[in-house]
Amino acid sequence: MKVSKFGGSSVATAEQIQKVLNIINSDDERQIVIVSAPGKRHEHDTKTTDLLIRLYEKVINQLDYQHKKTEILERFNDIIKGLNLKTNIITEIDQTLERLIYELKDEPLRLLDALKSSGENFNAQIIAAYNTEQGVPTEYLSPKDAGIIVTDEPGNAQILESSYETINQLNQRKHKIIIPGFFGYSEKGNIVTFPRGGSDITGAIIARGVRAKLYENFTDVSGIYRAHPNVIHEPEIISEITYREMRELSYAGFGVFHDEALQPLYRYRIPVVIKNTNRPNDPGTFILHDREFNRKKVVLGISCDKGFTSINIKKYLMNRQVGFTVKILNILAENNISFDHMPSGIDNISIIMRTNQIKGKEQQILEAIRRECEIDELNIEQDLAILMVVGEGMSATVGTANKITTALADANINLRMINQGSSEISMMFGISNKDAESAVKACYDKCYH
Amino acid sequence: MKVSKFGGSSVATAEQIQKVLNIINSDDERQIVIVSAPGKRHEHDTKTTDLLIRLYEKVINQLDYQHKKTEILERFNDIIKGLNLKTNIITEIDQTLERLIYELKDEPLRLLDALKSSGENFNAQIIAAYNTEQGVPTEYLSPKDAGIIVTDEPGNAQILESSYETINQLNQRKHKIIIPGFFGYSEKGNIVTFPRGGSDITGAIIARGVRAKLYENFTDVSGIYRAHPNVIHEPEIISEITYREMRELSYAGFGVFHDEALQPLYRYRIPVVIKNTNRPNDPGTFILHDREFNRKKVVLGISCDKGFTSINIKKYLMNRQVGFTVKILNILAENNISFDHMPSGIDNISIIMRTNQIKGKEQQILEAIRRECEIDELNIEQDLAILMVVGEGMSATVGTANKITTALADANINLRMINQGSSEISMMFGISNKDAESAVKACYDKCYH
Repeated sequence: MKVSKFGGSSVATAEQIQKVLNIINSDDERQIVIVSAPGKRHEHDTKTTDLLIRLYEKVINQLDYQHKKTEILERFNDIIKGLNLKTNIITEIDQTLERLIYELKDEPLRLLDALKSSGENFNAQIIAAYNTEQGVPTEYLSPKDAGIIVTDEPGNAQILESSYETINQLNQRKHKIIIPGFFGYSEKGNIVTFPRGGSDITGAIIARGVRAKLYENFTDVSGIYRAHPNVIHEPEIISEITYREMRELSYAGFGVFHDEALQPLYRYRIPVVIKNTNRPNDPGTFILHDREFNRKKVVLGISCDKGFTSINIKKYLMNRQVGFTVKILNILAENNISFDHMPSGIDNISIIMRTNQIKGKEQQILEAIRRECEIDELNIEQDLAILMVVGEGMSATVGTANKITTALADANINLRMINQGSSEISMMFGISNKDAESAVKACYDKCYH
Repeated sequence: MKVSKFGGSSVATAEQIQKVLNIINSDDERQIVIVSAPGKRHEHDTKTTDLLIRLYEKVINQLDYQHKKTEILERFNDIIKGLNLKTNIITEIDQTLERLIYELKDEPLRLLDALKSSGENFNAQIIAAYNTEQGVPTEYLSPKDAGIIVTDEPGNAQILESSYETINQLNQRKHKIIIPGFFGYSEKGNIVTFPRGGSDITGAIIARGVRAKLYENFTDVSGIYRAHPNVIHEPEIISEITYREMRELSYAGFGVFHDEALQPLYRYRIPVVIKNTNRPNDPGTFILHDREFNRKKVVLGISCDKGFTSINIKKYLMNRQVGFTVKILNILAENNISFDHMPSGIDNISIIMRTNQIKGKEQQILEAIRRECEIDELNIEQDLAILMVVGEGMSATVGTANKITTALADANINLRMINQGSSEISMMFGISNKDAESAVKACYDKCYH
């Protein structure tokens, strides 16, 4: 059994949906399909989900929302017409939207979750109906009927461990099933959306529940690139990547597959493949629990993300003061700031976090540290980018660090931080935001040319 | 006013003491002198302080201690005879030892402090008496009379802030003063020794108290080497080093001057010079608050210390778990373990400490972490050495990291950890104990040849 998930651009138009169904119908093992809401049809298009959020905004601001609703209905009508679907589903969509607005208008967060997830829901119904009409019996299954029961906090659904048992029963179904991604139902019966990675997470939950032999994640690229294609022209595609490598690269901006969606898969080592709906015969990228690595090409990928801040503290004889670190961590916790790294020297420590964590709170944090920690020097750096160089086996390969630092030195990039060791599979460099692109280029050229 | 401190080998024999007095008497600004107990006269000799500790052991084990005492008296008698000193000081030394043993035999820790510090005390009296006899009026001053009042915990004296005011009055003395190093008196009148860096600390306290223009620290080497002379044949001597650089190099084994002794000096930026009693005209090494650095030779020194342990923890999605780090730190605190560094990846963290911190507690720590932190993987590495490459301006000099990693890669040394960034003046590498010497050699050759 394979679980196949299709992203927004794969199900944005009738034509794309036909490609999707060709893929599904060409393999009997592709029995459970997760679909997204219709995405962008061209660069300047708006995703259905964003239209639905605008509809929500009209409603809660008590503005006339009919025009916005019509826009959404037209979007789905285009698909239905394009598929020549003989059904009155568009009336149902209209009625559903009106009912949700009527029932939930006094509970804005519930209404938001219900509206913004309905793009997936409608699309799943359309696609199931069409495939059935084409002669392949295909059942739409709501997340509730599939068994995706989640916590009840709006916009922050977490799967309940008990759900997996129910989901496992999907194995007994005979027909193909289409499940909308992005949301589940709470035990109280509310629609609740997943916080990040939306439909990817639904797919991962289902794949784990049925213990799929493969979780296929169809997008509009033929896999995961070794570096971001906006920075590197036609980068190589990675054939195999481990969960851990994926996590490290995602941390610094690799966005093809949401790393949080790996969590359900980790335990049962369910493999994922990232494939291209438009080029389904391309091999894609496999995400696996482990893989063989090549000592000659030990760096798997390079990513770089901007927008980090570092608080740098100096205190003479700091390392003799037990409890100093805990004091600092408590100040951060009291201010609800989660930090990422804490490299330390003998008399100094840096605390590195995403800038959005501390934005607006800089002064109060610095004052609290000054007040409570008797420090010698304190400063804050706000234009930090994190460069991640990732590959299984890096730490066991003499000279990897040297290769990268040579590339960066030759490109005249100053290293404000180096962190290697805790993770055997990555090196992390702190550089200036302005150097982000040239750092990726320099490393890519050094490692792959 | 200069404060001059002489280490054990500088005051081990009559001949050495004469060198010391030549140095003192040749400069009127050398008005306050701190002396150690007589050190080793040759490689296989025993330091007086160690003889005194053995005397203490005889006493508390209720064994016959007369032979050990005689050995000590002979040691001082050799010095007195060598100096042709016309005094009955040896009888006084004998009586003092017997009195301390009699008065403190039921308070072992007090007895230990009193006996082990008496080597400095007797030596200071002998040297002051001799210099006076030679026609240079020189006063012995006990630490109590000098104003060195400390906390009362045996073996762990900490100077009381209020002492500095009394010490400052030494500025008004007209004659030269000799003060024994290594101990102070508590407010209750007990002799209490300093924990580490003994006489260096006494000198630093006095230098700060009188706001000396220079603290001269005389030893048996002509300054601080760029790397350990046991590893590098005739290494270059450093001409100027900052307090911070000194700290970082001391951390990984530079022992010429105890870094803890820098603390009193730091605030008033009192410069230190390390000089050689046997070659007093050599320029020595100045330890300063700041210095100019040369971009072409930005690495000031290289040190490497063995005996570190790393606990490595992996947990999937660790960085999303607020409070995880604090949990780990609390386990360490409960077990009274102080750690040095905590490099982290996305899903992993390492905690690096000196092996002696965790020795014997490994299993209970690992079990506590397993029990309380729901981790995925846990292991411990016990043969870690820390290589420190230190120099002001390193972080601002593109290519420094590269130079070092090139040297290490060429020497086929695997880097188990790299930590750079928090401190602008150093890079820290984790390597195997077995690679310690070859790493220092490789870096030294790269930086200075």
